Amino acid sequence: MRTRILITVGDINGIGPEIILKALRNPVISGKYDITVITPLRVQEYYYRKLHLKGGMENYKIISICEGKANVNLGEITEESGYISGFAVKTAVELCLKNRYDAIVTAPISKKALHLGGFLYEGHTEMLSDLSGSKHTAMIMLHKKMNIGFASTHPPLKNVPKILTKNLLKNKIKVCINAAKNDLGIKKPRIGVLSLNPHAGENGQIGDEEIKTIIPVIDELNKESNGAQLSGPYPSDSYFAVGKYKDFDMTFAMYHDQGFIPFKMVAGFHGVNYTSGLSFIRTSPDHGTAFDIAGKNIADESGMIEAIRTADKLYKTRVKNIKSGKN
Amino acid sequence: MRTRILITVGDINGIGPEIILKALRNPVISGKYDITVITPLRVQEYYYRKLHLKGGMENYKIISICEGKANVNLGEITEESGYISGFAVKTAVELCLKNRYDAIVTAPISKKALHLGGFLYEGHTEMLSDLSGSKHTAMIMLHKKMNIGFASTHPPLKNVPKILTKNLLKNKIKVCINAAKNDLGIKKPRIGVLSLNPHAGENGQIGDEEIKTIIPVIDELNKESNGAQLSGPYPSDSYFAVGKYKDFDMTFAMYHDQGFIPFKMVAGFHGVNYTSGLSFIRTSPDHGTAFDIAGKNIADESGMIEAIRTADKLYKTRVKNIKSGKN
Repeated sequence: MRTRILITVGDINGIGPEIILKALRNPVISGKYDITVITPLRVQEYYYRKLHLKGGMENYKIISICEGKANVNLGEITEESGYISGFAVKTAVELCLKNRYDAIVTAPISKKALHLGGFLYEGHTEMLSDLSGSKHTAMIMLHKKMNIGFASTHPPLKNVPKILTKNLLKNKIKVCINAAKNDLGIKKPRIGVLSLNPHAGENGQIGDEEIKTIIPVIDELNKESNGAQLSGPYPSDSYFAVGKYKDFDMTFAMYHDQGFIPFKMVAGFHGVNYTSGLSFIRTSPDHGTAFDIAGKNIADESGMIEAIRTADKLYKTRVKNIKSGKN
Repeated sequence: MRTRILITVGDINGIGPEIILKALRNPVISGKYDITVITPLRVQEYYYRKLHLKGGMENYKIISICEGKANVNLGEITEESGYISGFAVKTAVELCLKNRYDAIVTAPISKKALHLGGFLYEGHTEMLSDLSGSKHTAMIMLHKKMNIGFASTHPPLKNVPKILTKNLLKNKIKVCINAAKNDLGIKKPRIGVLSLNPHAGENGQIGDEEIKTIIPVIDELNKESNGAQLSGPYPSDSYFAVGKYKDFDMTFAMYHDQGFIPFKMVAGFHGVNYTSGLSFIRTSPDHGTAFDIAGKNIADESGMIEAIRTADKLYKTRVKNIKSGKN
C-alpha cells in the first residue's frame, strides 16, 4: 500500500507552489506515493502556466481551498497568503487526525504572513503540535551525514536559557529517543547532547545551566531503561570540529543556530525537517519561502523531493515497528 | 630588527610548557624572532626532562617567575598554577607597556585555576584589556580561510543579549575595522555582520535586536568615512552554508559558539586567537590547557608556532602602517 501523503501549499507568494509542481511532475515521485496537494486550484494553475509546465498533474490529487482569497502577489507578505498557508496546514492536520492520511509534507511559510493571516504560531512545529493536541513534540533535522534534534525551534536567542527547564529538556530528548527508535528504526540510539554555554560552561565558570539542568537530565535519562545512551554535554565548537557527531545516531542541540550552523555546513540545504512526537509523520524541506526568487522558475525542488521520500520512509518504519509491537 | 616576542607559560599543569618547549626547539622559529619565555625555571626544567628533550634552549631567553610556588601537578586545577598563569600575563603586559617587547603570545590558561589564583577575569582578552588600560578591545580569530571578530568573548549565553548594546557593538566593530586596516593590512575591509536571532529575526518576528541594535549600528558605521564596508545582519546558518563569508575580509559574530562552530569546522584547531585594540600585539593558539594529556608528550605545538608567526606578521604590518602614517 502506498503511503498517503498530504502536501500543503505553503505561502502562495513564495516558492512553495513551484517546488511542489516541479517535484510532482516527476512520475517516479508522484506515482510512488498516494499524494494529495492542499492548495487553491487557482494558485496551482497560475504557477502551472507561469512556469510553462506540461502534463504531470495526472498522478496526484488536489484538495482545493480558499479559492476566493487566492491572489498571487509574487514575493509579497500578505494577510491572504498567510491565511491560506495556515488554513492548508489546519486542513492537513484534521485529515491526518481522522486517519485519512499518513503524513504531511509542508512547503515553506512566512511567519509574518502567517501572523497577519491570524495564525499566531512560532512556526510549523508549534502549529502542528497545537492543532493535533500533541503534548510533546520536537524538531529534528535529518540528513545521511548528521541528525540533530532540538530543545527549542525558533525563539529569540534571549528566551532560550529561560525555556530550558529540566522538564522541557527531558521531554524533548525523550521525543527524540522515541523518534530514533520508532521512526528511524535505531534500536539503541546513541545521542550526543550539546552544552548551552561556551566550553560547556567550564565547570560552572561560564553559566550554570550545564550543572543545574543538562547534566542531571542526561543522568536521569540514562538511568531509565529506555534503550538509549546519552553522552555530553559537549562544547559545541569542538564537537563539530573533531567530527564527534559521527559517534552518535543523533545530536541534540539547545537552540536553532547551534544546530543549524553545523547542520547546513555539512548537509547544505538538502536536509529534511521532521516534526517528531505527532501521531502522524510531518516533514518539510530545509529552506524558506525564498520570496526573492518566487515565480522565476529557478527554485530547486530537490529539498521537496527529499522531504516526500523521507516522510514515506519514516512512516513505513513506524508501521513496521507498530506491527512488531515495538512502539 | 627581529620582533621582540614574550611567551607566557600558561597553566603549568596543562600542555602550555610542553608546546612552548616543542615550538622553540625548532631553530627556524626560535632563531627568527627575539623570543623570551616568562615561566618558572623549575617548570621549564621539569618538562624538559620529562619530555626527554635535547638542546634547543640556546635561541631564546627566560624571565624566571614564582619559583617558590612552581610545583607541577599534572592535569590538576590548583591555586598555585592559576596564580602563576596570571602573574606571567601581568608581567608580560608590564614589559610591553614599557615598550621592552612588541608582542605577547600566551599559552592556554584554566579559568578556574586563574580565579583560584586571585585573578578574577573572564579570560585572557579581559585580563589584557584591564591590565593594559585599553578601553576597547576585541577577540578576533584568524585563519587563512576565515577571520572572525566577536562582539563578546565567553559570557554565559544568557548574558549575551544584555551585553549587546549599540555602544558596545559599535566599539567592537570599530576595533575590528582598525585591526583589519592596521594589523592585517587590508585597506578597505569588507565585514559581514551576523545576526543574533534565528533567521536574522525575520523582520522582528523573532527578537528585535537586529532592528533595534545591529542594523542601526551597521548603518551608522557605513556612514562614517572609515574606509570599511559593512553588510548584514546575516542569518548565521545560511551565511556559512553558502560560503558567504568568502565575500568578506572578516565576519563579525555576536557570541562565542556562533563564531567558533563554523570557524573550527573550517580551520580545525589551526586558528590563531588575536586580541585587537591593545597597544601591543597579542596572539594565542586556538586550544585549551588539555589537562587530560598534560605531560604525556603528545601535545601538538603547531598552534603555538602559528601564534608566534602570526604575532610577528601582525606586528610588522602595524609598524609599516605607522611608518607610512596610516595608523
